[in-house]
Amino acid sequence: MTDIISSMLPEIESELMRQVSRLDEEHSLPFKEMLTYHLGWSGDGAGEEATGKRIRPLLLLLTAASCGMDWKKALPAAAAVELVHNFSLVHDDIQDNSPERRGRPTVWVKWGSPLAINVGDALFALSTLALTDLGHEFPHDRVLESIRILQQTCLDLTRGQFLDMSFEDRTDVKVEDYWLMITGKTASLLSASCHLGAILGNADESTEEAYRSFGHFLGLAFQVQDDILGIWGDENVTGKSAASDLIERKKSLPVLAGLSKQGKFAEFWNANNITPENVEEAAKLLASDSAYTYTHDIAKQMTDMANNSLREADPQGEAGDTLMDLADRLLHRTT
Amino acid sequence: MTDIISSMLPEIESELMRQVSRLDEEHSLPFKEMLTYHLGWSGDGAGEEATGKRIRPLLLLLTAASCGMDWKKALPAAAAVELVHNFSLVHDDIQDNSPERRGRPTVWVKWGSPLAINVGDALFALSTLALTDLGHEFPHDRVLESIRILQQTCLDLTRGQFLDMSFEDRTDVKVEDYWLMITGKTASLLSASCHLGAILGNADESTEEAYRSFGHFLGLAFQVQDDILGIWGDENVTGKSAASDLIERKKSLPVLAGLSKQGKFAEFWNANNITPENVEEAAKLLASDSAYTYTHDIAKQMTDMANNSLREADPQGEAGDTLMDLADRLLHRTT
Repeated sequence: MTDIISSMLPEIESELMRQVSRLDEEHSLPFKEMLTYHLGWSGDGAGEEATGKRIRPLLLLLTAASCGMDWKKALPAAAAVELVHNFSLVHDDIQDNSPERRGRPTVWVKWGSPLAINVGDALFALSTLALTDLGHEFPHDRVLESIRILQQTCLDLTRGQFLDMSFEDRTDVKVEDYWLMITGKTASLLSASCHLGAILGNADESTEEAYRSFGHFLGLAFQVQDDILGIWGDENVTGKSAASDLIERKKSLPVLAGLSKQGKFAEFWNANNITPENVEEAAKLLASDSAYTYTHDIAKQMTDMANNSLREADPQGEAGDTLMDLADRLLHRTT
Repeated sequence: MTDIISSMLPEIESELMRQVSRLDEEHSLPFKEMLTYHLGWSGDGAGEEATGKRIRPLLLLLTAASCGMDWKKALPAAAAVELVHNFSLVHDDIQDNSPERRGRPTVWVKWGSPLAINVGDALFALSTLALTDLGHEFPHDRVLESIRILQQTCLDLTRGQFLDMSFEDRTDVKVEDYWLMITGKTASLLSASCHLGAILGNADESTEEAYRSFGHFLGLAFQVQDDILGIWGDENVTGKSAASDLIERKKSLPVLAGLSKQGKFAEFWNANNITPENVEEAAKLLASDSAYTYTHDIAKQMTDMANNSLREADPQGEAGDTLMDLADRLLHRTT
């Protein structure tokens, strides 16, 4: 971990805590507890493993710093993007019926769905309140623009989430639907994180656009890689049971590519009987239908696009180097 | 209906439609449909009965106009408070397991909870996006202040919702807990509607505070009356089966007042056997334990406070008269 990241991480946590302290009031403390549990600060299993990696706030702060801005001034925005991310995770876990998140029981498992919905709503409200704090340090038109961008991103998240949920029952999902879905569900918030960093860093218009575009392709590349790991990942490295995405019948990019071939994999898939016993065979069939090389090529294309945009943004100084390192790690991950 | 209200209502609908049209995109049309269904514009039973009364946007616009502002400029804010109201209703219906809203199946009944959570989230994002549109007509510091107020209100809503849900399992709920709960759940958004109207109307600080306070007490009075109607209301007038709040064991103000007496009603309640057959007896016992007069006195006090604040705000012109009429109707309702 570079020096700059190790000085940012504790500041991100403090800022998040300061924002969540808006719920410090005797009667809402048990409610606040549900938020701090989800954020990894309280309850069984609290600690670094439970907080997540804070990728989005890091991207935002590194972008602002790469534009020459004192990143500490942008901390409320860093908290805002992390709060949006966590609002969407809490609701996502209810929607997907997921029992675990970061190795711990999810909020809805601990307190039930009605309260978990409310926890997500509070995180959502807190994210916008965090942005309004920027008004102390930044011109109000820039703050307003930041709020507009982040709320548009939240709307895009709900759109992506809608598509994702509707895929489950659809048999006509195409690769182009997939791009729309992950653009909303994964890329929009990563893109907004970089975009906000550039706006707060007072970047000129073309640099702002380059950072926005970097975040967008970073998100797409990240998701496509995730899809590859979900089918052909090494269980020992990813910690997920290998090929679990096939058993869950997730319409990921390799699957959609494989289905469009109408070959042996499609036959196997349509027979609707992928089990832990035959999943390895299914993964092999999918690879032999060239879905593996196809998806890998796409991941590489998206990675190249991300790198090109980042080069165009031309990040400066130590923060700039760190941002390029971070992008590199995210784009060549094995977990 | 006065002239000014009948010119406002269609404009409120158009502005709401304009805001929701942010979801106009081929692939999200089935998703948009879920929002327009809830807002009363589409699906079985669409029409005036299904839209609700748009009380909050009317209060906002009438307040702005009573301060001498051209109310049309404040329409995005009017849409914003209505969108917040509807976001909270959609989530509330899931949380309460309510099958019907305004005489129609609720969103979660029609499309399931996962999609309904997403519908609420989209309405929430749209509400803040609506406020950012104010930037075309108002100074940006005032827009930012409006956003801060409405988001703080949303946080207060989640706090009130938490208290409401926690009351169900608690046996130690006190009258003071009740005030905290309805302040968040009912009063905060009515208060914010008037507050935003005054801010956009460029009212001076003491007038702004008077309108905020008017909305607050209007909300409290409204809720206390709702509690009275929920136990002693005339079924033929309210359309709700009389005393249904007692059967649902809702810890409303009359019930909390009755329980604190530790008299015959408390005995009846604690035996946990209120049924449609004996609910009339329970309502009578509660009244004889003086909860009826107590709650009526409180409703009158809150109504007086609301009226005093409104007089202090001194609303001007035709809009001012209409605002006073509307307050009067809301404060002396029988349904």
